[in-house]
Amino acid sequence: MRVMGIDPGLRNMGWGIIDVQGSRISHVANGICHSLASDDLAIRLLSLFDQLTDVVATYAPDCAAVEQTFVNKDAVATLKLGQARAVALLAPARAGLPIGEYAPNAVKKAVVGVGHAAKQQVEHMIKLQLPGAKLAGADAVDALAIAICHSFHAHSNSRLADAVKRASA
Amino acid sequence: MRVMGIDPGLRNMGWGIIDVQGSRISHVANGICHSLASDDLAIRLLSLFDQLTDVVATYAPDCAAVEQTFVNKDAVATLKLGQARAVALLAPARAGLPIGEYAPNAVKKAVVGVGHAAKQQVEHMIKLQLPGAKLAGADAVDALAIAICHSFHAHSNSRLADAVKRASA
Repeated sequence: MRVMGIDPGLRNMGWGIIDVQGSRISHVANGICHSLASDDLAIRLLSLFDQLTDVVATYAPDCAAVEQTFVNKDAVATLKLGQARAVALLAPARAGLPIGEYAPNAVKKAVVGVGHAAKQQVEHMIKLQLPGAKLAGADAVDALAIAICHSFHAHSNSRLADAVKRASA
Repeated sequence: MRVMGIDPGLRNMGWGIIDVQGSRISHVANGICHSLASDDLAIRLLSLFDQLTDVVATYAPDCAAVEQTFVNKDAVATLKLGQARAVALLAPARAGLPIGEYAPNAVKKAVVGVGHAAKQQVEHMIKLQLPGAKLAGADAVDALAIAICHSFHAHSNSRLADAVKRASA
């Protein structure tokens, strides 16, 4: 199974792709889509959408996972994040991919083991789990973490399904 | 010139299309795109995107106008509106249309003459300016108002451009 993780942002939209076989994961690619703050909002959203659509077409993931946006107190920032998030959901949805959504704490817990890990710990664990991967930046690291979180949950779910099958057999 | 106005919303996304010739406007079509609250967010955004893309393909507007989102105190509502707004901007942007953005007060001022008009006044003026148009609902009325606001500004701009041309001739 190939998983694409996306860390939504209007200026920097991180993405990371991993392959998952049972409990083994390996790095495929990661990067950051950019949009220019000087462009009109519609142009920025379209640019991010086109870049993400290209990534989906290039690496053909089987599913995607997007971080659940942290709703903060700054309404203008929340609105921007909402707009970026819509693009992060739309691009894989248009390609027919199922999409998981995970809270930031769930992502950290899956990667580091605790929900309140520091950024550096997440990056450290990503480097350990995906040795040799060239990381494009902090947003790409977060995107890989989201992909790993999804693979972790998908793996648990499939083991649970197997157990249920065996129990009812 | 054919103008498409869009009133963004996650549950109900209003749209309205008018033809503009000089200072004359006429109704083409209006409607409301829906998404189900019970569906996943990605599915809802994709559904709205597909519906809006269909409207753009069917009526082939020359430009679009979207209401600037009112940033309110409820962060969850702001986030939802941001996501709906991204779809409202993306669908016409993907079709290559230039997109204008107008604050709610600017829309009311263009249609009713004052920035703090009541909903009923806006609907009354829409019915007067687009006689015979069957209105699909409040969100479609708002979308037609946004289209009229855009035509008003585009008309002023082209008259200004003409005046500048004459002055510099």
